[in-house]
Amino acid sequence: MSSSTAVPAADGEPLVAGRALRVALLGCGTVGGEVARLLAEQATELAARAGAPVELSGIAVRRPDKHPELPTELLTDDAAGLVVRPDVDVVVELVGGIEPVRGWLLAALRAGKSVVTANKALLAEHSAELFEAADAAGADLYFEAAVAGAIPLLRPLRESLAGDRITRVMGIVNGTTNYILSAMDTTGAGYAETLDEASRLGYAEADPSADVDGYDAASKAAILASLAFHTRVTASDVHREGIAQVTASDLVAARVLGRTVKLLAICERVTADDGTESVSARVHPVMIPRGHQLAGVGGAFNAVYVEADAAGELMFYGQGAGGAPTASAVLGDLVAVARNRVAGGRGPRESAHAALPVRPMGQTPTRYHVSLDVADRAGVLAQVAQAFAGHGVSIAAVRQRDANDTASLVVVTHLAPDAALRSTVDEIAKLDVVHEVVSVMRVEGEDQ
Amino acid sequence: MSSSTAVPAADGEPLVAGRALRVALLGCGTVGGEVARLLAEQATELAARAGAPVELSGIAVRRPDKHPELPTELLTDDAAGLVVRPDVDVVVELVGGIEPVRGWLLAALRAGKSVVTANKALLAEHSAELFEAADAAGADLYFEAAVAGAIPLLRPLRESLAGDRITRVMGIVNGTTNYILSAMDTTGAGYAETLDEASRLGYAEADPSADVDGYDAASKAAILASLAFHTRVTASDVHREGIAQVTASDLVAARVLGRTVKLLAICERVTADDGTESVSARVHPVMIPRGHQLAGVGGAFNAVYVEADAAGELMFYGQGAGGAPTASAVLGDLVAVARNRVAGGRGPRESAHAALPVRPMGQTPTRYHVSLDVADRAGVLAQVAQAFAGHGVSIAAVRQRDANDTASLVVVTHLAPDAALRSTVDEIAKLDVVHEVVSVMRVEGEDQ
Repeated sequence: MSSSTAVPAADGEPLVAGRALRVALLGCGTVGGEVARLLAEQATELAARAGAPVELSGIAVRRPDKHPELPTELLTDDAAGLVVRPDVDVVVELVGGIEPVRGWLLAALRAGKSVVTANKALLAEHSAELFEAADAAGADLYFEAAVAGAIPLLRPLRESLAGDRITRVMGIVNGTTNYILSAMDTTGAGYAETLDEASRLGYAEADPSADVDGYDAASKAAILASLAFHTRVTASDVHREGIAQVTASDLVAARVLGRTVKLLAICERVTADDGTESVSARVHPVMIPRGHQLAGVGGAFNAVYVEADAAGELMFYGQGAGGAPTASAVLGDLVAVARNRVAGGRGPRESAHAALPVRPMGQTPTRYHVSLDVADRAGVLAQVAQAFAGHGVSIAAVRQRDANDTASLVVVTHLAPDAALRSTVDEIAKLDVVHEVVSVMRVEGEDQ
Repeated sequence: MSSSTAVPAADGEPLVAGRALRVALLGCGTVGGEVARLLAEQATELAARAGAPVELSGIAVRRPDKHPELPTELLTDDAAGLVVRPDVDVVVELVGGIEPVRGWLLAALRAGKSVVTANKALLAEHSAELFEAADAAGADLYFEAAVAGAIPLLRPLRESLAGDRITRVMGIVNGTTNYILSAMDTTGAGYAETLDEASRLGYAEADPSADVDGYDAASKAAILASLAFHTRVTASDVHREGIAQVTASDLVAARVLGRTVKLLAICERVTADDGTESVSARVHPVMIPRGHQLAGVGGAFNAVYVEADAAGELMFYGQGAGGAPTASAVLGDLVAVARNRVAGGRGPRESAHAALPVRPMGQTPTRYHVSLDVADRAGVLAQVAQAFAGHGVSIAAVRQRDANDTASLVVVTHLAPDAALRSTVDEIAKLDVVHEVVSVMRVEGEDQ
């Protein structure tokens, strides 16, 4: 099954293709099932494109007896054994989570197998170790499916923009939270109610924490920041806030001002006044103008902006999850591994030469939108403005409105260190003239 | 200058990099100047990313004495001699046009030099010949900058989506025509007047034909269709209509219906009733809904939709032209060539295994929007509808409106072969009850 085979070339002459690329598939759920299906259905086309047939040698699943749809002879429950088998050239890992997957993939790489994985959590913690093992063995490590599903985003960052200086990567990288925030915006309902509805419709997991608390997006932010800035950034370097604190009032406050709320992953190159560079990576809810392209990204779609010195502003948009879209990314990586074997080369290695320091959130420049219920009398704005000034925060815009016998005051700041903005809000909350801090949200996508 | 050099690795240990990649630059205008500048300014970073220094060996320009900004010792007017010099590993071609560039690049490839080019016209006519020469010599041929400037689009098509089945590529790939149509939409001015203004502002060339007559977009469509469908498609296979026939009336007709007009390149996989597949590639003005993401793409920006079986709908957006954005794409390709040399492999070859037939425009399914001034009396719609029915064209929507003592009738069709739609319009124009065919435009981006 691994011998060479004849594939017709474009001009009709037979093209003798290389030895088959033999694949071990770990995990066969929604994505793995699609990968297995497409490998079978598109075998001829994949062979023509890859320069060699791409064949399944084995599929490791927890319960082989639960997969009557798969060929029995391929199934095993011994993933650790499968990944080092001599009839395996590349391991496709779709199990997820850190252990025991980390051990399997390190064993595979050390045995000279290439690895294609969609495992964002593992990469966000252990990519350095995986890259080192791949490098030592001359194996490939591809992971396009780990961030933004079907969207070709990591290959552009690793390769197309390798000659440019990326300054910013910002986007919607989690479909569940995007679905929930879009629904809250549309219906006016609160967070808990909307999460229940999303779970009922299958848009949220039974345990939604990885999504709604921002862990999934933070892993992706770590991967994006690492690639964009040629620096090792792990999930623990990423400042993370989920959407559980976003209220119906936040969305009303946003709507009144022509804005909406999205959970964004934001990775930036920050240059200090003395010219030293650092990297900031964060995930939190953000208020953006309704006219912004990210505001229109609904449901399970992902969209990511990339800004680079020479290229300027780029945007990538597509389906961020799901069986077939994720399988598309996995198969693209498999074709790359096969082509590298045929041509005798290999894919891009880890690029961490810049080794920039990661800036803590408190020192990261952000902008705040603060919506307050205040006493309806003269001098309130002066007191609030004084609080901002006292922390060195400059105000970009103020909006006051009377509503019944109370008044609302909205302040949007210029860029300031996040810690200064937080301290300001804490101080304002204690002012006698402030009845309630209705909404505090960071702002992106607007001119200053 | 081509010896190995030490580049610090991320962990501080010295990484001995490979032999320098020595670059011959052909042409040093807006893009070439940026490439030369970035190669010098980013030398350390590029070496770290590429695994080897990237150095200029020579720059061929028509008039070396006109380039005081460049090092004299690098300049030559002998491009043919430069491309085969032993101290050149890769040729970056930014001259444009077919001859004499074709001869230079074939000579370079045959001498084993890799080629990075932004030359869409050459690739749209002679890519098969260039790929064959590259293949025979084991050299790389990269051309990311040839379509959509800075947007990483060709690498995703060639690599990321190599495991998927692309069904459609549709987008705005020419900034000049997009600027003119956007301006006509905003100001209500006619084509000639707007073109004059665009020329005055530097958005259109002194001879604008390559842009406004659709030649530039047709070359890009040929390249996109070739990559997307693994089939050789040349510029002469692309149905081409420019924007010179687009009138202020067309834009008014579009606006009334909540639509606007864009010049799109559209490449489709068409499956006939008997299951046989073919490819359609065309460039023409299109009416799209104002809510469509392509409708909001203004000025010199490009945006391209890609639809694939597994990935679903993807969109890529960014700057389609200009010195720095195009240089970003060129440098990404240069880093790829350098990495391939270091790793001992090579980039993707031509993929033309599908060899699908190209469908003539007349047989390509399209939809028409037809706006008519008609006699204000009963029975007009019946006559017009009969003309459509007589050509087997099904009507999707009709809108009638009285204006003074004449009446307007707007018809939007379902999909039908383009030739049938054309014949229908010709017949309708001859009806007594039709005073004038105000606007005929193909429609995309709407539900049927």
